[in-house]
Amino acid sequence: MSGIVVQNIERVDADVIAALERCGVSTVHEAQGRTGLLASSMRPIYAGARVAGSAVTISAPPGDNWMVHVAIEQLKAGDILVIAPTSPCEDGYFGDLLATSAQARGCKGLVINAGIRDVRDLTEMSFPVWSKAVFAQGTIKASLGSVNVSVVCAGAAIEAGDVIVADDDGVVVVPRAKAAEVAQAAEAREANEADKRARLAAGELGLDMYKMREKLAEMGLKYV
Amino acid sequence: MSGIVVQNIERVDADVIAALERCGVSTVHEAQGRTGLLASSMRPIYAGARVAGSAVTISAPPGDNWMVHVAIEQLKAGDILVIAPTSPCEDGYFGDLLATSAQARGCKGLVINAGIRDVRDLTEMSFPVWSKAVFAQGTIKASLGSVNVSVVCAGAAIEAGDVIVADDDGVVVVPRAKAAEVAQAAEAREANEADKRARLAAGELGLDMYKMREKLAEMGLKYV
Amino acid sequence: MSGIVVQNIERVDADVIAALERCGVSTVHEAQGRTGLLASSMRPIYAGARVAGSAVTISAPPGDNWMVHVAIEQLKAGDILVIAPTSPCEDGYFGDLLATSAQARGCKGLVINAGIRDVRDLTEMSFPVWSKAVFAQGTIKASLGSVNVSVVCAGAAIEAGDVIVADDDGVVVVPRAKAAEVAQAAEAREANEADKRARLAAGELGLDMYKMREKLAEMGLKYV
Amino acid sequence: MSGIVVQNIERVDADVIAALERCGVSTVHEAQGRTGLLASSMRPIYAGARVAGSAVTISAPPGDNWMVHVAIEQLKAGDILVIAPTSPCEDGYFGDLLATSAQARGCKGLVINAGIRDVRDLTEMSFPVWSKAVFAQGTIKASLGSVNVSVVCAGAAIEAGDVIVADDDGVVVVPRAKAAEVAQAAEAREANEADKRARLAAGELGLDMYKMREKLAEMGLKYV
Amino acid sequence: MSGIVVQNIERVDADVIAALERCGVSTVHEAQGRTGLLASSMRPIYAGARVAGSAVTISAPPGDNWMVHVAIEQLKAGDILVIAPTSPCEDGYFGDLLATSAQARGCKGLVINAGIRDVRDLTEMSFPVWSKAVFAQGTIKASLGSVNVSVVCAGAAIEAGDVIVADDDGVVVVPRAKAAEVAQAAEAREANEADKRARLAAGELGLDMYKMREKLAEMGLKYV
Amino acid sequence: MSGIVVQNIERVDADVIAALERCGVSTVHEAQGRTGLLASSMRPIYAGARVAGSAVTISAPPGDNWMVHVAIEQLKAGDILVIAPTSPCEDGYFGDLLATSAQARGCKGLVINAGIRDVRDLTEMSFPVWSKAVFAQGTIKASLGSVNVSVVCAGAAIEAGDVIVADDDGVVVVPRAKAAEVAQAAEAREANEADKRARLAAGELGLDMYKMREKLAEMGLKYV
Repeated sequence: MSGIVVQNIERVDADVIAALERCGVSTVHEAQGRTGLLASSMRPIYAGARVAGSAVTISAPPGDNWMVHVAIEQLKAGDILVIAPTSPCEDGYFGDLLATSAQARGCKGLVINAGIRDVRDLTEMSFPVWSKAVFAQGTIKASLGSVNVSVVCAGAAIEAGDVIVADDDGVVVVPRAKAAEVAQAAEAREANEADKRARLAAGELGLDMYKMREKLAEMGLKYV
Repeated sequence: MSGIVVQNIERVDADVIAALERCGVSTVHEAQGRTGLLASSMRPIYAGARVAGSAVTISAPPGDNWMVHVAIEQLKAGDILVIAPTSPCEDGYFGDLLATSAQARGCKGLVINAGIRDVRDLTEMSFPVWSKAVFAQGTIKASLGSVNVSVVCAGAAIEAGDVIVADDDGVVVVPRAKAAEVAQAAEAREANEADKRARLAAGELGLDMYKMREKLAEMGLKYV
Repeated sequence: MSGIVVQNIERVDADVIAALERCGVSTVHEAQGRTGLLASSMRPIYAGARVAGSAVTISAPPGDNWMVHVAIEQLKAGDILVIAPTSPCEDGYFGDLLATSAQARGCKGLVINAGIRDVRDLTEMSFPVWSKAVFAQGTIKASLGSVNVSVVCAGAAIEAGDVIVADDDGVVVVPRAKAAEVAQAAEAREANEADKRARLAAGELGLDMYKMREKLAEMGLKYV
Repeated sequence: MSGIVVQNIERVDADVIAALERCGVSTVHEAQGRTGLLASSMRPIYAGARVAGSAVTISAPPGDNWMVHVAIEQLKAGDILVIAPTSPCEDGYFGDLLATSAQARGCKGLVINAGIRDVRDLTEMSFPVWSKAVFAQGTIKASLGSVNVSVVCAGAAIEAGDVIVADDDGVVVVPRAKAAEVAQAAEAREANEADKRARLAAGELGLDMYKMREKLAEMGLKYV
Repeated sequence: MSGIVVQNIERVDADVIAALERCGVSTVHEAQGRTGLLASSMRPIYAGARVAGSAVTISAPPGDNWMVHVAIEQLKAGDILVIAPTSPCEDGYFGDLLATSAQARGCKGLVINAGIRDVRDLTEMSFPVWSKAVFAQGTIKASLGSVNVSVVCAGAAIEAGDVIVADDDGVVVVPRAKAAEVAQAAEAREANEADKRARLAAGELGLDMYKMREKLAEMGLKYV
Repeated sequence: MSGIVVQNIERVDADVIAALERCGVSTVHEAQGRTGLLASSMRPIYAGARVAGSAVTISAPPGDNWMVHVAIEQLKAGDILVIAPTSPCEDGYFGDLLATSAQARGCKGLVINAGIRDVRDLTEMSFPVWSKAVFAQGTIKASLGSVNVSVVCAGAAIEAGDVIVADDDGVVVVPRAKAAEVAQAAEAREANEADKRARLAAGELGLDMYKMREKLAEMGLKYV
C-alpha cells in the first residue's frame, strides 16, 4: 500500500488560492460549513505567517523522513508540504537543509503531524511550519512511504492537491473540488464582517444587531 | 440551573485593582497565601500583557457561545470576561468581532478555559486572551448558559466581581472581599523584594540572606 | 539517599563548550549519535536564546525549591542549572530573585522539568529558561534534596559537569567525557552542511545529491 | 488560609444518600441539570463499585498527606474522603494503612485528584477509590492543609457535607441543600426510564418514541 | 455539508466479517499492510470482547447525540456504530437506553471518539464499546449531523460499510473493497503463526528461526 | 553508540529478588528512600500480577523491535525484559509470539515505555506487561539498538541486572548493588506495618499512633 509516488496531481487556480490565503483559517473554516480543521495541537513555529497552497502529501513511516526527499521533487511553486506519519511520532523530520531545498522549488511552508527542528534557521528563512512538536530527534531513511496519496493528518482527511490554509489560528484543508466555491463564500463572509465590525466598534450590541433578545427570552433567559 | 443573568454585581475599587495589576500574578498569588491560580494550561496568546479587572463570568455549554453576547452587555469599563464551559471543550468561542464589541465596552481581556480564534486580529487590537487552546472551530447559539454566576474555570472557583489578574505567568483570581487586603500584602511583598534583589545581584547568597545554613545542617545536609 | 551536595565537580574546557554552543542542539544531538535529547515538553520561555554550559544538577522534592539556594553557591561562571523533581511537578520553583542570584554568579540559564514564574522579568534579564510549564505556584523549603548528583531530567540521564546545550530546538546533554569528541564531530558536521545547503539552495535535489534514486527503485518505489 | 479543621459539618439524611447511591452517577448528574461532574480523568481502581456519602474534604499541599490523618478523625460512618491537592500532583497520598484506618471509622471510599497506591490491598478490602493516577510515590508530612473547607476537586467545587456519588461512570457532587430534591428527581428519572427501556428493547425506535421525525425534517435532515 | 442520512450502504459478506473477527485487530492490521488503526486512546470499557461488523457512521456535533437516534434506524444485524464528533469532545453521547435500542436492532457494538456512560449496564448487557473516555456528561439534541458519510474517527478515515474490527488491542478499519482480500491474508497469517508459536515455545530463538544473525552481524552488531 | 549486546551481566541473588517481589512496588520504593519509580503512565495490561526479576535492557529505535529478538537470547530464567525506545513511541513492539519465546526462556514479564499488542493472548499466557499503551501498530526490523546497556525508561535510569519490581501499583527499579539492603529494609517495613495495620483496624487514630497532635498544634492547626 506504500511505496507509491503520484506525479501529476491537479491543483487549484492560483487566484482561488490567493483568495483563500487572504481570508485565513477561521473564515475559510466557517465558509465551508465548519469542516476541515486540523487538530489544535498543530501550532506555528513563529507568529504572523499566513499561507495557502496546494497540498503535496507524504505518508511517512514513524521516524523515517526518506519520502520528504522524494516529495520535494514533486513540488511546484506555491505548494505546501503535508507530512502525516503512519503512527504517532514527534521526531524531527524536517530542518533547515530540507527547508532550503523545498524553498528553492517554491514551497510556501510545511504542515506536519510530528516534530521539526532548526526552528531558528526556519524562522530566519521565513519558512513557516505548523507542527505538533519541536524536537531535534533525528530520523532515518530505511522504509518507503508514499507521496501524493490520501492521508489523515492531525484528524483531517487530506488529498493531494487540496488547498491548505494555515495561519496563527491553525490549519484548515479545503477539498480541491470545492475550493472555488469556498473562496467565494469566504470573501463574501469577509465583506459582510466589515460592516458588523464597525457597528460593534461603535458600541452596538450583538444582542441587538443579531436580534437575539426575543429568542433568548423565549428560551427562558432570566435577568435577576 | 442555567439561563440566569445576574445584572448588578459588586466590583472592587479601581485603585485596588490597579495595585493588583502592578504586582502581577506571581506576587498576588503569594500575597493571598498561594491560592487562586488557574491551571498552567491557560496561556496568553501573545507575550507581555498584564491586566487586572473584575470578572464577568460566563457558564457556557460546550461549543455554544451565545451567552458571550449576553455577557458583553453586562460589561463595565475595566472588566475581564471569564468563560467556563460546562464540559471540556476547545472550540473557538471568541474572535475578532466579539473582541471588538467587548473592547468597545471597555473590557480589558478574556480568560477562557476553551479555544479562541483570530489570534492575529486580537494581537493587533491589543486585546489579551488567556486560553487553553487556539482553535478556529466555530460554535453555535442553541442553548442557554448563565452570566455572572459562580464558575469553576481551569480548576479555580470564581465569583462574578472577583478580581482576575493575568500576565505572562498565567491567571490568578482574588476573591472580591479580600482584594484590598491582598493588594496591600502584594505591594508590601514587592517593596520587600527590591532590597533582596539588590543584595542578590551584588552576589550575596540566599543561603546567607535567609540564614538557611544552620537549618540545613541540622536537617542533615552533607557537603562532600 | 538525598541530602548530599557534591562540591567539586569536573567541568569541560571552555572552548569545547563554546564550540557546542555554536553548533546548537540539533547538530550536537546528531554528532553524538542521536542521543541525549530531553523530552520535547521542555520549551524555552522566549525565542532566540542559545546557550551551552556545565550542568549543576539539583534533585529536588516536588514543590520544594530549597536546594536551589544550595546549588547557587556551587555555580561557577558559565554553568547551567538543571532541576529535576523527584516526582512529576509543575510548581514554579524559580523566579526573578533566584535568577538574579544565579546570574550574579555567572549562571547562563536554567533547565527544569517543572514550572517557573516571573517570565517577563526573566526575559528582560535575558536569563533563558527551558521548562515544562510556566506556573506561578509557590514552593516550600521543607525537605532536603541533593546537588550535583546524577539525575534523570525530562527523560535524559544527566551527571553534574555534563555539558547542557539548549536553544529553540530544545535541550541536549553531552556526557563530560565525550564533550571534546562530540564538539569536533559537530563542527565537522556544520562545515559539511554549508556545502550541501548551497547546492540545495541552487535547486539540486536531495535525491541526486545523496544518490538515493537507485536505492529507492530497488526497494520498490513506484512513480505513477 | 490553610491550617483549619472544621469539626461539625452538616450531613444529608441517610435515606437521601441511599437514594442517590441507588441511582448512580449518570442519573444523578442528569437529575440536577447536568452539573457537578468531576473530570473524566477520575477513574475507579476497580470496576463495579458504587457508593454515595457525605464529603469530608481535604485541601492538601502537593505531595503532603499529613492532613489525611487529621481528616480521618472527622469521619463518620458513611462518609467519603475527598482530597484536592493545591497544585497538580500525582503522588500516592493514600494506601492500605490509611484505608484500614478510614474503613475502621466507616468511611465508604475515597475521591482524590492525585495518586494512590496499594491497589491490590484496597481492592481486597473492597475500599473503592476514584483517582487520577495510581502511583506509589511516597508523600511527606511537613505542611498544614485544611479539612472540611471548600475545595475544587478535578474541576468541581465541593463543600464539606455535600453528597458524593461515585461509580464506574465517574464521580458527581450534589450540593447538600439540593440533595433531597435531586434524589427525588433522580428516582423519578429512573422510574421513567424503565418504561422507555422496555419499549426500545422491543424494537421501538427513539425517533418514534420521542417523536423526533418532524423536528428533524423541519431542520432539514435529508434521507438519500 | 451536514444533515444527510445515507440509507442504503453496501456491506461486506458475513463470512468475510466473521473471518476478520476471528483474526482480531493486530492480525488484520498486519494483513492489510499495517494500516487502518484508530488511535490508542480508543479503549474498551471491559476486557475480552472481540467484534467485527459493518460501520454505520455518525458525524456528530460536539455534545449533541441527536444523530445517534437517526443512525439506529439505519442499523442492520451485525453492524457497528461509529461516532465521530466534529470537534474534540468527551461528553457521554451514549448510555444504556441507546444501547438497548441498538442491540434490539442487532448492533454488535460501538466505537466512539468521545465519552460514553452507564458502563455497568453496558457491561451487563455485553454491549462492547471502544471510547476515548468514560464520562457521564449529558448531551443535547439541537443540531443536525450526518449518518453514513465519510468520517475521520480517532485518526482513521472510515466510510460507511467499511468493516470495523475491535478487541482488547484496539480498533482497526478495513476498507469495504479490500475486506475479502484482507480476510484471506489475515487467515493465512494466522495459520503461519501457529507453527512459529510452537517452535518458539519449544525454545527455538527468533534469531535462528528468522535467520537474523547474519544480517545483524553485517549491520555491525557487536557482542561484548 | 548503539549496536552493542552485553552478554554477561551480573544478577542479584534469587532470594533477594524473591523478597523484593513479596514486598511489592510501594514498599520497595519506600525502603530505598522513595526513589526508582517509573512514571505512572506505565500500567499493567491485567490486574493482580506481581513480579520481580533482573532487568535485561533494550535500547530500541522508535518503531523497530529487532533488538527484542537479540535480547531474548540473553534472557535467563527469572529475568524481566525492559524496553526503552530512543524517542517517544507507542507502537506495538511486542505480542504473543515474542511472549511465547521469552516465556520459553523463563522470562517473567515485560516493562516497556511504548505499546504492546495481543493483550488477550498475553493475559491467557499469564505473561504480565507494564506499558504506556496498548497499540496494535506493527514495527520494523531495520536498525540496530543495544542490549544490556544503561537506559532511561519512563523517567527512571536502569542498568542491566538491576532488579525490576512490578505490580498493580506500577514499576520500580532497585540498583543491583543495593538490592540486598533494600530487600532487608523492605521486609522490616512490612513487619512493622502489620502491627500498625492491626491498631488502625481496631480504631486507633494515626494522629495518636504517630503522636502527631502536638506537632500539628505547634504548626498552628486550628479546630473550629
